[in-house]
Amino acid sequence: MALVFTITEMNAYLAEVFPQVDGMFGIDQMDEDLLVMRLMVSDSHLRPGGTVSGPSMFALADVSAYVATLARIGRQALTVTTHCSIDFMRKPESGRDLLAQARLLKLGRTLSVTDVLMYSEGSATPVAHASLTYSIPPARIG
Amino acid sequence: MALVFTITEMNAYLAEVFPQVDGMFGIDQMDEDLLVMRLMVSDSHLRPGGTVSGPSMFALADVSAYVATLARIGRQALTVTTHCSIDFMRKPESGRDLLAQARLLKLGRTLSVTDVLMYSEGSATPVAHASLTYSIPPARIG
Amino acid sequence: MALVFTITEMNAYLAEVFPQVDGMFGIDQMDEDLLVMRLMVSDSHLRPGGTVSGPSMFALADVSAYVATLARIGRQALTVTTHCSIDFMRKPESGRDLLAQARLLKLGRTLSVTDVLMYSEGSATPVAHASLTYSIPPARIG
Amino acid sequence: MALVFTITEMNAYLAEVFPQVDGMFGIDQMDEDLLVMRLMVSDSHLRPGGTVSGPSMFALADVSAYVATLARIGRQALTVTTHCSIDFMRKPESGRDLLAQARLLKLGRTLSVTDVLMYSEGSATPVAHASLTYSIPPARIG
Repeated sequence: MALVFTITEMNAYLAEVFPQVDGMFGIDQMDEDLLVMRLMVSDSHLRPGGTVSGPSMFALADVSAYVATLARIGRQALTVTTHCSIDFMRKPESGRDLLAQARLLKLGRTLSVTDVLMYSEGSATPVAHASLTYSIPPARIG
Repeated sequence: MALVFTITEMNAYLAEVFPQVDGMFGIDQMDEDLLVMRLMVSDSHLRPGGTVSGPSMFALADVSAYVATLARIGRQALTVTTHCSIDFMRKPESGRDLLAQARLLKLGRTLSVTDVLMYSEGSATPVAHASLTYSIPPARIG
Repeated sequence: MALVFTITEMNAYLAEVFPQVDGMFGIDQMDEDLLVMRLMVSDSHLRPGGTVSGPSMFALADVSAYVATLARIGRQALTVTTHCSIDFMRKPESGRDLLAQARLLKLGRTLSVTDVLMYSEGSATPVAHASLTYSIPPARIG
Repeated sequence: MALVFTITEMNAYLAEVFPQVDGMFGIDQMDEDLLVMRLMVSDSHLRPGGTVSGPSMFALADVSAYVATLARIGRQALTVTTHCSIDFMRKPESGRDLLAQARLLKLGRTLSVTDVLMYSEGSATPVAHASLTYSIPPARIG
């Protein structure tokens, strides 16, 4: 399904709707098959030992599924996460950005399902795997 | 199974191992049947509209399962989350603390499973429901 | 929310819509707070060693969430499972029926969320824990 | 990680440890990158309308993750499912076998994580997506 946002437009939209996380995430790639989002790691995301915290990984998965969905349906401010299942498989590498590869598995009338694999930059072994469901508000009529 | 921490000891331990979230969480109740943890809501946890963000709810579920587990097995710094499944069911009430009721469903030799229901303070309707698995490192010998 | 089926009516409805599992499940209790469903264990549900198989436990969780939802919304043949997250925590006791305690956590306009704890009959320790989401078709107009 | 079973050996092992499902599943492909398992659809797996039931899809995901794990660690009869998260995204096509593409995402000392995508044979659109965790018993010494 064709995308209705460019990367520049999506970054501007995220800064508008989530001002509190502006500068935390960036989009490396966004096309019909794959979205790659980056968590720009800073001290606030780290656990002792320098690895990215679970809530920061969850936040990356969540915004990736949001972007993968909205890239196709456009500005739908009321689209909300209804479910996330996440497996934490390995410790991320210390001091590296985290990259999420997100693939939209389903885009239905009332929900989307997105698969997300997360990697430390420069590594080919996933550190976490998530599946997220977003609820899409019914289309307005008129 | 008997608890090996008091609330005061657990709060001190959390401040020691997670200094970056010190002041974010508090323990309202901790006994063998139930743990009640509080997310002290501040601006950094909010989405536009004043509701608590998904990553903040995830963080509350995660720390609740950690505390429910460590309250029984003691200081095990290497205990890590391996899975979280979370349903976001309703929008939290604006400007209220979030309370998590956590119940340990299983404490095995290598993993624990904790059920967590989250409520806006003063409301009886859950806003989110999570199940978390922690991996417990093998006991040291000697 | 009030129930629109009696146990007798619900059993008849299940036999009508799922004839292939007729005789496999029964309803022990069904009221606004709690549904208790029974898996009548027979050889076809067992693994070597006499314990109930994972797919049979999944089937019990699934039908419990279906009944908990339809008890409130009535005959909606197009209501379908969209998600199940299930933790298998202990081996069920050999040769015992399995009982599911199901609680509806959310009934929205387009989805329901149900929490299910499963026990071997006569035991107070849960063997499995599941959370299920059902998608409810939009109400027909006219 | 190299496989320690051939397809023929694995089929024989499955028939030995799960005699009750013999003839239900087959292995189409099994190598280091990908396992493809087939649910040979028969009347007992169907819901009214001719589509494969949820418990049958769960059973296919479960056996796929089991085979993906045991193909690498060998005969470990005590390896058990501890978690499954499954999204049902579309109705399977009537009367078609179901194919599962399983990829082992993690093989640790005490657990494995497997990602499973399921398709109706002949279709490129996934009908369901699952992530499963298996607990691996500690290695025997001596």
